[in-house]
Amino acid sequence: MKHKIGIIGAGAWGTALSVAAVKAGNEVFLWSRNIEVVNLINKFHENKIYLNGIKLTSSINATTHLEQILKCDVILIVVPAQQLRNIIMQIKEFNLPKNIPVILCCKGIEQESLKLTSEIANEYIANPVAILSGPNFADEVALGLPTGTSIACEDQDLGMKLVQILGSTVFRPYYIKDIIGAQIGGAVKNVLAIACGICEGKKLGQNAKATLVTRGIAEIGKLSIALGGDKQTLMFLCGIGDILLTCGSIKSRNMSLGFALGKGEKLEEILQQRNYVTEGVTTAKSVFDLAKKLQLDLPICQQVYNILYSNVTVEETIKNLLQRPLTAE
Amino acid sequence: MKHKIGIIGAGAWGTALSVAAVKAGNEVFLWSRNIEVVNLINKFHENKIYLNGIKLTSSINATTHLEQILKCDVILIVVPAQQLRNIIMQIKEFNLPKNIPVILCCKGIEQESLKLTSEIANEYIANPVAILSGPNFADEVALGLPTGTSIACEDQDLGMKLVQILGSTVFRPYYIKDIIGAQIGGAVKNVLAIACGICEGKKLGQNAKATLVTRGIAEIGKLSIALGGDKQTLMFLCGIGDILLTCGSIKSRNMSLGFALGKGEKLEEILQQRNYVTEGVTTAKSVFDLAKKLQLDLPICQQVYNILYSNVTVEETIKNLLQRPLTAE
Repeated sequence: MKHKIGIIGAGAWGTALSVAAVKAGNEVFLWSRNIEVVNLINKFHENKIYLNGIKLTSSINATTHLEQILKCDVILIVVPAQQLRNIIMQIKEFNLPKNIPVILCCKGIEQESLKLTSEIANEYIANPVAILSGPNFADEVALGLPTGTSIACEDQDLGMKLVQILGSTVFRPYYIKDIIGAQIGGAVKNVLAIACGICEGKKLGQNAKATLVTRGIAEIGKLSIALGGDKQTLMFLCGIGDILLTCGSIKSRNMSLGFALGKGEKLEEILQQRNYVTEGVTTAKSVFDLAKKLQLDLPICQQVYNILYSNVTVEETIKNLLQRPLTAE
Repeated sequence: MKHKIGIIGAGAWGTALSVAAVKAGNEVFLWSRNIEVVNLINKFHENKIYLNGIKLTSSINATTHLEQILKCDVILIVVPAQQLRNIIMQIKEFNLPKNIPVILCCKGIEQESLKLTSEIANEYIANPVAILSGPNFADEVALGLPTGTSIACEDQDLGMKLVQILGSTVFRPYYIKDIIGAQIGGAVKNVLAIACGICEGKKLGQNAKATLVTRGIAEIGKLSIALGGDKQTLMFLCGIGDILLTCGSIKSRNMSLGFALGKGEKLEEILQQRNYVTEGVTTAKSVFDLAKKLQLDLPICQQVYNILYSNVTVEETIKNLLQRPLTAE
């Protein structure tokens, strides 16, 4: 059966998810506030601004009218986490019918409130909420390369239905129940990616990097459990899958920032050279604040925070980590 | 307190562990049956045959006399898994005192018996057994680069004691209890590395590879639990840590074999060009046999087996994996 899928946000990931949703046999409506993006997609079937060079299927209906999206059977929200509150408030004003499921596809922790995306949504709307998160480079999904992802939803029947609605041979969602755990890996991975970049920049070796990622995953698990997530969720695509992808590529924004730090460059200079946001830098602060609030010991995240915000040198940091007492895993 | 550590096997890993044990403040005796290796280490402080180009500390005592090793306080066995039975039988003949802990540092499943290394040891000796396994490239450990590893031992007091005996600022063992789970990641990872190599060779993208590793880890978990291991062990250095390291480097023997397969080369030709063993090829058969015996569904391992042993093409294999029903993680 054909479903109407409304996708809010036509960045690289929202556009790629539109392609995946069409591939799964749905009718897709894609919202952007940017009329130029809408025209490019409708007329030239390409999102030159956010996903340049990838030909899109002609059947995506781009629009600047949020009302049109809100008439769909399923809504996906694919805006940056820091903009989610604003979009959810608009949805509430438009009186989205309460039975329409809303899938949150944004990764992150809101800076001021330290809230997860599902917590922000729950403040305003009573609709069933699901989380879509996994090891997903947008360009590869838009190109139709095979990709797995997690769909988390407390209501198992609905979750499995969403898996069927969005899934195809190449875009393969797997259902999980835990919506808290599903959000933590994607939100915190960028802090770990900065640490991995430092490790590479300092030439500490592949053993050290694998150890860092493994111990970092344990920290992410601690945070997840403290927030009410399930230990096991970390093993899924939204957990280790996403972390592996982000910590595996030196080209990623966060790894490359860490790499430059590891090679001895100054943070201010690295940030000045960049005309884009390096998410891990803000997330490091959110995680530090959360850890403090929840009284958690997250040594790797805390050392990354120290380097970024407390002028602690990379050398001191490494010494601190290596001098921790030997213990159990 | 200084301990006498006896290390059986002077390949790259045994030699590197000797360096780590010296660094931790111990007196180290390293056994090899190869008199040339023993002389090189004692006279030139270099194992030119297995760890060429790395200067070793002068305080390693290499020997061809197994009796000398068996007078130590702690024994590490670092021979290939397929040779373990033979060494354990020799140890038994020499009447190793029953209180001396034996740390098994070999990764693998015995081909004929499908037994883990701890199971082989238990057939012959009653000594307390521990497992050392983690994301450990030997050359990096020998160079003194920071490295984490897992030490598994059912007796927690002994396990923590071994952590203290072998641990230093740069070589950092973490204690875990589960000796079964500790052996599975290291044994099975090479099958997954072949799958990852195929994925890269076929240019399926980074999303596909991250998905493959994540789902592969789930399979390794299934196998581990079926053999009596603990679900959680997979999260540790001996689990995801080791898997990440092996699946992260295209240079590794198993990844590069998969890569060649993915690019369309024939298995026989790839194997003919190699004058060394590609462990994943034999492990794929052991895992296939184990899965059959335990009635487990391990789709990725099974597809690797099909490519290696049943003339199924890479293309068919990918199709098979992508056509599996969409489900829960």
